[in-house]
Amino acid sequence: MITSMSNPRIKEVVQLQKKSRVRNQMGVFVVEGIRMVREAPPDRLVQVYMTEEFFDRHGAELPEGIVSPELVSPQVFTHISDTRTPQGVLAVVRQKKRQENEILCLDAQGKCSVPVHILILDNLQDPGNVGTIFRTAEAAGATGIYLSNDSVDIYNPKTIRSTMGAVFRMPFAYVDSVPETIRKLQEQKVQVYAAHLKGKRTYDAEDYTVPTAFLIGNEGNGLRKEVADCADTWIQIPMQGEAESLNAAVAASILMFEVSRQRRKGSPSCPDSRQPLAKAASNRLTAVTARP
Amino acid sequence: MITSMSNPRIKEVVQLQKKSRVRNQMGVFVVEGIRMVREAPPDRLVQVYMTEEFFDRHGAELPEGIVSPELVSPQVFTHISDTRTPQGVLAVVRQKKRQENEILCLDAQGKCSVPVHILILDNLQDPGNVGTIFRTAEAAGATGIYLSNDSVDIYNPKTIRSTMGAVFRMPFAYVDSVPETIRKLQEQKVQVYAAHLKGKRTYDAEDYTVPTAFLIGNEGNGLRKEVADCADTWIQIPMQGEAESLNAAVAASILMFEVSRQRRKGSPSCPDSRQPLAKAASNRLTAVTARP
Repeated sequence: MITSMSNPRIKEVVQLQKKSRVRNQMGVFVVEGIRMVREAPPDRLVQVYMTEEFFDRHGAELPEGIVSPELVSPQVFTHISDTRTPQGVLAVVRQKKRQENEILCLDAQGKCSVPVHILILDNLQDPGNVGTIFRTAEAAGATGIYLSNDSVDIYNPKTIRSTMGAVFRMPFAYVDSVPETIRKLQEQKVQVYAAHLKGKRTYDAEDYTVPTAFLIGNEGNGLRKEVADCADTWIQIPMQGEAESLNAAVAASILMFEVSRQRRKGSPSCPDSRQPLAKAASNRLTAVTARP
Repeated sequence: MITSMSNPRIKEVVQLQKKSRVRNQMGVFVVEGIRMVREAPPDRLVQVYMTEEFFDRHGAELPEGIVSPELVSPQVFTHISDTRTPQGVLAVVRQKKRQENEILCLDAQGKCSVPVHILILDNLQDPGNVGTIFRTAEAAGATGIYLSNDSVDIYNPKTIRSTMGAVFRMPFAYVDSVPETIRKLQEQKVQVYAAHLKGKRTYDAEDYTVPTAFLIGNEGNGLRKEVADCADTWIQIPMQGEAESLNAAVAASILMFEVSRQRRKGSPSCPDSRQPLAKAASNRLTAVTARP
């Protein structure tokens, strides 16, 4: 059992929790809690740390074939944990790097092979917002997420927590130039919409049964002009009262679930007015509830 | 200028920031930042505190007729501020207590006079979620919010911040018994929907052009059985992937904007298939963008 804070592996985990640079140099990140550790793909687990107490109580709930866990003292665990009330288990997990083109779901002929449903996050800074967007994107059936290189690090511990595991499953890539990415999407006949304060079209009047991408801008400043100008269409969500804007994750969620709604129904508004999308049939009817 | 942390008024502001009990005993709360201070209804402003630097730079942006601001030293301001990077202005604002029945918009005959659009928050605990729900509710045209007495305090500084001013405008009331509140809504022919993991009906197949209320449950545990059992209908938001649930604020936002969408269109799915709602005409077309 590791009982010393100056153990080099313990020091390394602390660095991984705190520093984006260290995470990216080593190509790994840290997840905490039994739920996240169980959802991590087993082939990407590098090391699992837990307290003896946790092992005695929950060892049986760990995935089979897990790399032999490293036991640490409660004091050491509190030291390496990023949460206020640590559960007593965390894992170091390998990052999965995807090429920018992978998000486009290109087939052997270099054509977009599914009706993609993509988010492009331009300079988002709030870890909770980005995590919530990943979580909601998975539920809404989004096919991938691009993030501008100056957006918050998805492997930030707070972002990881907010994804509720979607970080393991949602295809994503950081990109150097958002305008360049938009151009590639447009070449593949993806309709690119900018969620914009000055949008003239209402979001629910557009047809999202075709390949669709949404641009979501920074929490304080909205979309950068040079990015917004690349979109095919500027849309807005009609707002009442004196509200001036919506939270970035809320706006993204409303747009993504409008895509989901239309693809289930096969059209923007009226059932049976178009051919239903074959892809939409893969919906899994589960549920809505309130989780943190 | 106040320069001492032991000044009794400074001590009082610190207590108001930290303690729900003190806020409720005194019937006031604290808002920070020029935007929140400007949005506070002038007749509810009790006192404004600011640094000299803030007064020199932004005094002209303060609302006219503001109660004469109290200047405090930068050290004292940092002491009374709840934020990491204080702007240098905060205000003590009177709470507005509403009777439970006010949220029902009853007319002189004791009947519900508008097609209400109500949220009922059952034991929500995350300040950011509740604040975001208030902000989104205003934008979606919700008419009122009930909170169970064991939900987080809306006057918590973090909640206040997340409302982005909606706390001043959205009618709300804390209630002792959610089942009792549901019964009163049902007496007024309000359809009460529970957002529930085991909902059999898809949220977007329901008709929200009639008076509607949604039950939203605790972030970790969902709706309490005795509350969910009072609903007229259990609904769910279809989810794809391995997502098990949605964030409480995201789920509430999707439901509220489906109400907004239907009321703009006058029907659940097809334009022109019903009489448009007169009330829906009051929509203000503004915008969607990303703000914190």
